Amino acid sequence: MPLRAPEEYKTALRAMRPNVYKFGKLIEDVTTHPATCRTVEGHAQSFAAALDPERSEIVTTHSDLIDEQVSRYLSLTQTADDLIAISKMKRWAFQTTGTCTGGRCVGHNALNAMWATTYDLDHKAGTVYHERLKAWLIDAQRRDITCCGALTDPKGDRTKSPSKQSDPDMNLRVVERRPDGVVVRGAKIMIAGAAAAEEVFVLPGSSYGEGEEDWAISFVVPRDVDGLTVVEARRPSDTRETEDGFDIPVTTGGITQGYLLFDDVFVPTERIFLNGETKATLKAVLSFIMPYRAAIGGCVAGQGDVKIGAAILMARANGIASKVFRDKLTQMQINNETTYGVGIAAAAMGKKHPSGVWLPDPLLANVNTLPYETSRLAQEISGGIAETGCMPSTADLDDKRYGAKLRKYLSAAVEGEPRIRAARLVEWLTIGAGVPGCMHGGGSPDGAKLIIRANSDWEGAAEAARRLAGINDPIPDPSGK
Amino acid sequence: MPLRAPEEYKTALRAMRPNVYKFGKLIEDVTTHPATCRTVEGHAQSFAAALDPERSEIVTTHSDLIDEQVSRYLSLTQTADDLIAISKMKRWAFQTTGTCTGGRCVGHNALNAMWATTYDLDHKAGTVYHERLKAWLIDAQRRDITCCGALTDPKGDRTKSPSKQSDPDMNLRVVERRPDGVVVRGAKIMIAGAAAAEEVFVLPGSSYGEGEEDWAISFVVPRDVDGLTVVEARRPSDTRETEDGFDIPVTTGGITQGYLLFDDVFVPTERIFLNGETKATLKAVLSFIMPYRAAIGGCVAGQGDVKIGAAILMARANGIASKVFRDKLTQMQINNETTYGVGIAAAAMGKKHPSGVWLPDPLLANVNTLPYETSRLAQEISGGIAETGCMPSTADLDDKRYGAKLRKYLSAAVEGEPRIRAARLVEWLTIGAGVPGCMHGGGSPDGAKLIIRANSDWEGAAEAARRLAGINDPIPDPSGK
Amino acid sequence: MPLRAPEEYKTALRAMRPNVYKFGKLIEDVTTHPATCRTVEGHAQSFAAALDPERSEIVTTHSDLIDEQVSRYLSLTQTADDLIAISKMKRWAFQTTGTCTGGRCVGHNALNAMWATTYDLDHKAGTVYHERLKAWLIDAQRRDITCCGALTDPKGDRTKSPSKQSDPDMNLRVVERRPDGVVVRGAKIMIAGAAAAEEVFVLPGSSYGEGEEDWAISFVVPRDVDGLTVVEARRPSDTRETEDGFDIPVTTGGITQGYLLFDDVFVPTERIFLNGETKATLKAVLSFIMPYRAAIGGCVAGQGDVKIGAAILMARANGIASKVFRDKLTQMQINNETTYGVGIAAAAMGKKHPSGVWLPDPLLANVNTLPYETSRLAQEISGGIAETGCMPSTADLDDKRYGAKLRKYLSAAVEGEPRIRAARLVEWLTIGAGVPGCMHGGGSPDGAKLIIRANSDWEGAAEAARRLAGINDPIPDPSGK
Amino acid sequence: MPLRAPEEYKTALRAMRPNVYKFGKLIEDVTTHPATCRTVEGHAQSFAAALDPERSEIVTTHSDLIDEQVSRYLSLTQTADDLIAISKMKRWAFQTTGTCTGGRCVGHNALNAMWATTYDLDHKAGTVYHERLKAWLIDAQRRDITCCGALTDPKGDRTKSPSKQSDPDMNLRVVERRPDGVVVRGAKIMIAGAAAAEEVFVLPGSSYGEGEEDWAISFVVPRDVDGLTVVEARRPSDTRETEDGFDIPVTTGGITQGYLLFDDVFVPTERIFLNGETKATLKAVLSFIMPYRAAIGGCVAGQGDVKIGAAILMARANGIASKVFRDKLTQMQINNETTYGVGIAAAAMGKKHPSGVWLPDPLLANVNTLPYETSRLAQEISGGIAETGCMPSTADLDDKRYGAKLRKYLSAAVEGEPRIRAARLVEWLTIGAGVPGCMHGGGSPDGAKLIIRANSDWEGAAEAARRLAGINDPIPDPSGK
Repeated sequence: MPLRAPEEYKTALRAMRPNVYKFGKLIEDVTTHPATCRTVEGHAQSFAAALDPERSEIVTTHSDLIDEQVSRYLSLTQTADDLIAISKMKRWAFQTTGTCTGGRCVGHNALNAMWATTYDLDHKAGTVYHERLKAWLIDAQRRDITCCGALTDPKGDRTKSPSKQSDPDMNLRVVERRPDGVVVRGAKIMIAGAAAAEEVFVLPGSSYGEGEEDWAISFVVPRDVDGLTVVEARRPSDTRETEDGFDIPVTTGGITQGYLLFDDVFVPTERIFLNGETKATLKAVLSFIMPYRAAIGGCVAGQGDVKIGAAILMARANGIASKVFRDKLTQMQINNETTYGVGIAAAAMGKKHPSGVWLPDPLLANVNTLPYETSRLAQEISGGIAETGCMPSTADLDDKRYGAKLRKYLSAAVEGEPRIRAARLVEWLTIGAGVPGCMHGGGSPDGAKLIIRANSDWEGAAEAARRLAGINDPIPDPSGK
Repeated sequence: MPLRAPEEYKTALRAMRPNVYKFGKLIEDVTTHPATCRTVEGHAQSFAAALDPERSEIVTTHSDLIDEQVSRYLSLTQTADDLIAISKMKRWAFQTTGTCTGGRCVGHNALNAMWATTYDLDHKAGTVYHERLKAWLIDAQRRDITCCGALTDPKGDRTKSPSKQSDPDMNLRVVERRPDGVVVRGAKIMIAGAAAAEEVFVLPGSSYGEGEEDWAISFVVPRDVDGLTVVEARRPSDTRETEDGFDIPVTTGGITQGYLLFDDVFVPTERIFLNGETKATLKAVLSFIMPYRAAIGGCVAGQGDVKIGAAILMARANGIASKVFRDKLTQMQINNETTYGVGIAAAAMGKKHPSGVWLPDPLLANVNTLPYETSRLAQEISGGIAETGCMPSTADLDDKRYGAKLRKYLSAAVEGEPRIRAARLVEWLTIGAGVPGCMHGGGSPDGAKLIIRANSDWEGAAEAARRLAGINDPIPDPSGK
Repeated sequence: MPLRAPEEYKTALRAMRPNVYKFGKLIEDVTTHPATCRTVEGHAQSFAAALDPERSEIVTTHSDLIDEQVSRYLSLTQTADDLIAISKMKRWAFQTTGTCTGGRCVGHNALNAMWATTYDLDHKAGTVYHERLKAWLIDAQRRDITCCGALTDPKGDRTKSPSKQSDPDMNLRVVERRPDGVVVRGAKIMIAGAAAAEEVFVLPGSSYGEGEEDWAISFVVPRDVDGLTVVEARRPSDTRETEDGFDIPVTTGGITQGYLLFDDVFVPTERIFLNGETKATLKAVLSFIMPYRAAIGGCVAGQGDVKIGAAILMARANGIASKVFRDKLTQMQINNETTYGVGIAAAAMGKKHPSGVWLPDPLLANVNTLPYETSRLAQEISGGIAETGCMPSTADLDDKRYGAKLRKYLSAAVEGEPRIRAARLVEWLTIGAGVPGCMHGGGSPDGAKLIIRANSDWEGAAEAARRLAGINDPIPDPSGK
Repeated sequence: MPLRAPEEYKTALRAMRPNVYKFGKLIEDVTTHPATCRTVEGHAQSFAAALDPERSEIVTTHSDLIDEQVSRYLSLTQTADDLIAISKMKRWAFQTTGTCTGGRCVGHNALNAMWATTYDLDHKAGTVYHERLKAWLIDAQRRDITCCGALTDPKGDRTKSPSKQSDPDMNLRVVERRPDGVVVRGAKIMIAGAAAAEEVFVLPGSSYGEGEEDWAISFVVPRDVDGLTVVEARRPSDTRETEDGFDIPVTTGGITQGYLLFDDVFVPTERIFLNGETKATLKAVLSFIMPYRAAIGGCVAGQGDVKIGAAILMARANGIASKVFRDKLTQMQINNETTYGVGIAAAAMGKKHPSGVWLPDPLLANVNTLPYETSRLAQEISGGIAETGCMPSTADLDDKRYGAKLRKYLSAAVEGEPRIRAARLVEWLTIGAGVPGCMHGGGSPDGAKLIIRANSDWEGAAEAARRLAGINDPIPDPSGK
């Protein structure tokens, strides 16, 4: 069985070339540096669970490719049940770490998207990308690696296509073609979990047209490959990670979002899965977005579960019974189940791609509304202290002159410290470093609406209504379309 | 193959004893009387579709009991896919008839609920209800009957239990036990589609306790059985059904909701499926509610599809392109898919009962929020004319003195008549006779919330949050619970 | 004091030429015919209140024009307090009649809009419209008449201007100019309360441009003027008005919406307030819309108050304490006060027009969101019986064979009849004849949003944000605008 | 004219005894220390505006007490127009500083609340508090001071009253009564703007009952009085204030919320405005809450204006025209005007207290719904970069190795830096240090609902509905109340 222990995973990370920066400084060891150790710890939870008989079913599955149990994050999604299992795993991951472990989950999505894309491409164009991907995946499963995914390009001026940008690097591109591979330049931005990842799976960031062959590229590289630099984005309240104390309440989870600067990085041929086939880029992107949006309800619901728990803790710490807030808690639960359920439905109503991967229903995958109301309700239940996080710092609470007084005045039904910890958790989840950015994950809400429109049969609905209303002649659209 | 043609179904209805009243008058023939012919026509659509190769898969399935293709309305729901097929059928039924065909669908739900209930009961108590139900169902499948379902009792004073009511008939009850059966008295109210049904499947209306054996009763009787009188409820704008013209725009669908007065009705033993076992009544009711709430999203989405179509028609009739309203239409589509999708998820996440029927996930089944926003948006798109239905009657439009003027002034991008027909359809769907009452179908929204609470693990959520927040000691609920 | 008693008002209506039709039949006496007597009764409430010392302040005010107390419906709105008093009166009117008394209130709005419009016009163009209007108003106040207002033209194809319609009558227009007046042809549609009105105040229905002088017309005529025919629109459940019993629960209020057919109607010069001045039409329409939208919150809140009361009655009739629904009731109250309050604010933040009338703040006047949620909550509290109105008709409840049984089974905490009456009230308010069409009153929601955009200073907001963010260079809009 | 220049105000702050701490360290000079200088700068804006002829009307008014123009923050609110002017000033203050300047506004609210409370108290009890307050206020106006307000006590176990707490200090209390004053002990927590204030106006934090005389206390003290220590709460992303660069984008505004520890502070008699009169405490609290909730719409709308501007900036920086987002922007504007308008209405519908201060309508004051949707929409428009604030730090952007690359890849329609500044502003407003905590300002949303219930006439609504429905007998509430 190829499954690694958490410590093996961390050892592997430590063996890599340090190339991650934050606040202008190189991070020598991502497993211990305060800016990255929480997200590494979060990703490590899935390694621990894989080896725990009680939880291994959540995070592992059988691979036909190597005939062994492998991480779901390195598996092919072949049935509706597989896709539902992914949703369940994401919900579990958020419940366990409090936030996103995108360093494994985006890579999983990317490899499945390219599995279908390369299959079709090879069948049409006689290329051999699918076999290459298969070879890489077999190896990746055997090594049990953590592979993040990278989709988003800087894009520059949104009104211009990649080839019309004043600087062609605004979308990642091939700058040199060699017999043994290609050299790429540009950036991928806002990439989740790169610091915790061993490899990076790169997808084209948009659909490209004729003449934009250099931008139509997909490949995998080690995260520490020569020429690649990662600059971690800062996030709200992230300097607390560098402090002592519990002003960041969660130690077993955290999120990083990196800017990946590709400074003429060489990619060998066997790790290239798309190279100039612009026509395949739309399929690649859509195949990525659909299962991603479908399963994101698992993420949102999982963090929603933590918000429910944190809100209850705060109420209790204030001396108020949960019963007082049962309407609000019920609404939070409804939000969680609705966003989770719509994704489950997208999986259940999906269909199999000839390559073997399961594609969710595109309409259901995109109607997912993300319950921001849940955050507001958690703040309502918790009171002003959590709404703005206005509590003294751990340093103040420990101050010899006035710390004891502060702790006394912050106590309620329980001592000051547990009450503050609960309030910090609500703050962290709603306006702090634990906010995972699910609103724009897999594309903006407006992008999702575009897909909804494209998959809605409004003409058919109008026809059915016309017949029901007993109208004989067609009523065409005045726009002439 | 036992499937009947629509005309056979109507002939059977005509052969029954007339016992349906409205406006104080007996309805001699439900298939032609204006108050009932539309709902009969609506139910007949499912018979027609069953014989149409292109649509038969929607409304029929294979029965292992008789090894033949039968109506889904008389089938056992044995897998998640079966339950999803029921949702699809309901969506199709609303799209086809514009409204509810509860005269078949509630009966389907009732027989499945009792399938599980009698199975458990017989295993515990050694009774033979399950075999009786099976015998009836085999016969019902062979006869391809239309069987409505009856759950709701008048209940009387809600603060008192059935046995404490000043009048014991406020919940349907056994008043006499004979060797060959029982005599029942009382009423079932707001029963959908009784006029279009050949039999009535009666369930207990609530959970009953010790000493309330007489109220714990389930059985099937012919709709025209001696002692049973049906009084149809009036509904908004229902007198239009008695008028000529198109002020009711839909002829192939309609809804009736009857008050069933059981005036000492005899039920033979072989048609009794529960008789005094009060402990089984809660299970019967819950087994009814869960799949009903799960699948109701199909109903709501199906009518929502018609609302979308009707709104587009109105926009076009006004000379406005659909594009102008694309945000509103997208929101309507999101509402439809969300309510539909949550039910699909409840099916997908369900589990099999030992009796063979598939039970949906109780939490997901009840989070279904019903998109009243869709009605409001349809009115927004259509304009004031559809919001209040303030158009002249068909009689006025046909008037020789001023009818031509009215038609002229009501024309826009199309002639007056199709424009009015479209507006009448929106009116009918949103504030007229086509409103199906889905808000309270299968119990009130507050009832659904009770079930959500019962199925939510808030204690577990609080524990997980406590661990994440690094709080060592438990924080108990101040209420002591 | 010119204030008339209700009976005097009705006598005046009876003296008019019958020219109101419904269902193809002439209504000989609008004060007794079932289709119109309820709205006449509703309008009569304001005459009764004017003479009642306890309520006269609500509906009357002092007129400087005739130095007497007059109906507010015939008064000039000269201060913020006047406009707030109008909102209060509308709330009272809905509380008292359950619905709209547009036959007085729209006329009030029209005369004030033209007061400002004619003032400006005369000052610019040297016309004498303002003096004419003043003379008519003095006379109208002395006669204490009921004057409805007529704004909406049929409009025909919305993509074409009035002069480009295939039929020029699709907007009301002058077809002949004579020395002593003009002859008009066309229609005004969906006019509230015409049957209860003695005169009709006609406004231009849109803004007109050069070459459309014939459509730029405003005047007042008697409602029974030669050539004018009124066809009443039908409304949901309106035939109940022709039945005995209480299936329409309200007798002191009702709404009619008429189609006014102008078949070459002569208007004498002294009653013409705009005639060909196309440039003034936009001002006329906006001056009408602003106070109308501002005060409509009074209408919505007033009916909302009745919805609250009706929902409480239903809960009690079901045997459930109001306390159970306090969250829902609180939300209903919040909706009422919000829509009411925003209108009050529009009045408070308004400014005086040189003509003396008070113009509300255009932005606040249009943000009024109309709480459809209130209707939904009333249905939630009341149960399925009110959601669809599915109760037997009065005829059935009175039937000798089964009426007593129905009443018994419809009783709960109270007898069947009061319970049904309460449920019928909720039905009437939410999906029946009492729905007043406030969503589109004074223009569609999308129309209101256009005005919001026009009155929002987004450029200023962007500038302020730019300075706050410490950005030195301007960031222009990419569209170049 | 007593109005001070900003520099005079800052000089006064510098002259005070340093007693403000954060992160365990004493702040020597609040006007320059990074943790407090932004809020001081924000408060200084109102001093600058007072001396600027173009803006002085916004922030100053005439005081009858000293017959001079004074800051509105030190004025009595005597008319509806005064209260509306306060709302306008708050909206202006948020537009100007981006956030709350509670260090002046809460004090203003407190002095007005006590103006009414002391007036009534003196009239009933013959005390002389009102004259004392007047003397202090005259002096305060002449000195043009900044006075913050302090209401919230730590409260401890919410299920127990102040006198039953295990530690009596959990609510601020008198521990010694002397001939020349009192000594107080305890804390006030989450006090806005204390660091920027020269005095602190203390109010009772709740309604107190008999036997709780020691907690019924109101007074004013210098912020640097002996025995008083202020510990500033930390807030999301507050350490950025200590960094160079623009990761906190706003320099002319900021918020602090302090924990005020009263360690046996002596208050001289002439500065005590309530001392043991428990019966007056409810009035004091309500008189504080009502105008506070009424005017908070000004705060929310003012920051909403900045959110609109920031969202437009981001769209433009991304190269997207505002037009694309006009529906979202319109909704944001509607939210702003609604929350603002409801407060205006509460002012307009208020009434004068015998003491001369204007009390808003309590129902309208509390229906204020705070538009969290506006924050979500700002994030939707701005994209994922602002949702989570995931951009590199200023340190990274300035890094010599990769800073230029980051800036390049963050450019779009404009250079990287202005784009990041705009995104940081959205982050700051929605999940960063600029979040002002308006949800709980003046009490929790649930607290507001309690007041709504208390001021709603549901019994009257039920009676009116009963009469409209034609029901003769009363329908009492089943609960017997």
